Amino acid sequence: MTDFTEADKLYMKEAIKEAENAAEVGEVPIGAVVVCEGKIIGRGSNRKNMGKSALKHAEIIAIEDASSVIGDWRLDECSLYVTLEPCLMCSGAIIHARVRNVIFGTTEPKFGGVVSLAKTFDIERLNHKVNYKGGLYAEEIASMMKSFFKKLRKP
Amino acid sequence: MTDFTEADKLYMKEAIKEAENAAEVGEVPIGAVVVCEGKIIGRGSNRKNMGKSALKHAEIIAIEDASSVIGDWRLDECSLYVTLEPCLMCSGAIIHARVRNVIFGTTEPKFGGVVSLAKTFDIERLNHKVNYKGGLYAEEIASMMKSFFKKLRKP
Repeated sequence: MTDFTEADKLYMKEAIKEAENAAEVGEVPIGAVVVCEGKIIGRGSNRKNMGKSALKHAEIIAIEDASSVIGDWRLDECSLYVTLEPCLMCSGAIIHARVRNVIFGTTEPKFGGVVSLAKTFDIERLNHKVNYKGGLYAEEIASMMKSFFKKLRKP
Repeated sequence: MTDFTEADKLYMKEAIKEAENAAEVGEVPIGAVVVCEGKIIGRGSNRKNMGKSALKHAEIIAIEDASSVIGDWRLDECSLYVTLEPCLMCSGAIIHARVRNVIFGTTEPKFGGVVSLAKTFDIERLNHKVNYKGGLYAEEIASMMKSFFKKLRKP
């Protein structure tokens, strides 16, 4: 059983808010926040369709937001909270941005790059070590996603 | 020995031009182009430092450029030419964007996501199949990068 702090819960709720923002505009509900020294410095909400780009994942948007706020691409002391397990691309982006901790909600069996399809953060040869834990509000998040896809299928 | 067509050589030269553009502004010389139906529809030149973002890799910029030109995130019929083996993040981005073929120059032993650190495109469970070949103008590209780093070290 993974231990989550009260702060973890608080920040994941903010990531869930970002996921809800995505759903409101018809995007798959995935949200992320970047936290540094107890402050949210980046927010991201999935914009894959609206952005007409396969790369507009919540994590990417949140990392770019945080980088532009602090004026540096290094997010060494930051934690990323994201509702869904980051994909391969986002896992790579997290390593590049040197994010210290990743806390995710539900696993992504098809394309997850942390524990599912690949275990990117566990590659031993990597210089940068990312700590991660998953499963926070996993059921609530899975149910939010299910209900989004259910509505989508209705005419 | 990998076979390269005349078209491959032509497009890789364009990617090399993009790499040279990066070097001119003090960025590590990495360049990429996206080709669709015999036409270059996206170009990217490494902008990691200027963009103050760890995510501004040549491939990402070229993919976003191509997506915005065709108004779609799906690049099913496109090929990406890039001077350096794509990293984990870019390999993930290439899969997301459904790029069909990747042709790269030099391998990237430390972080390459195609043949070096990971073999992302070979993961069997992936729905989207990316064809790839590497080694085109590998020596010329390696020497261009070496000379960039050599100049950088000089006071």
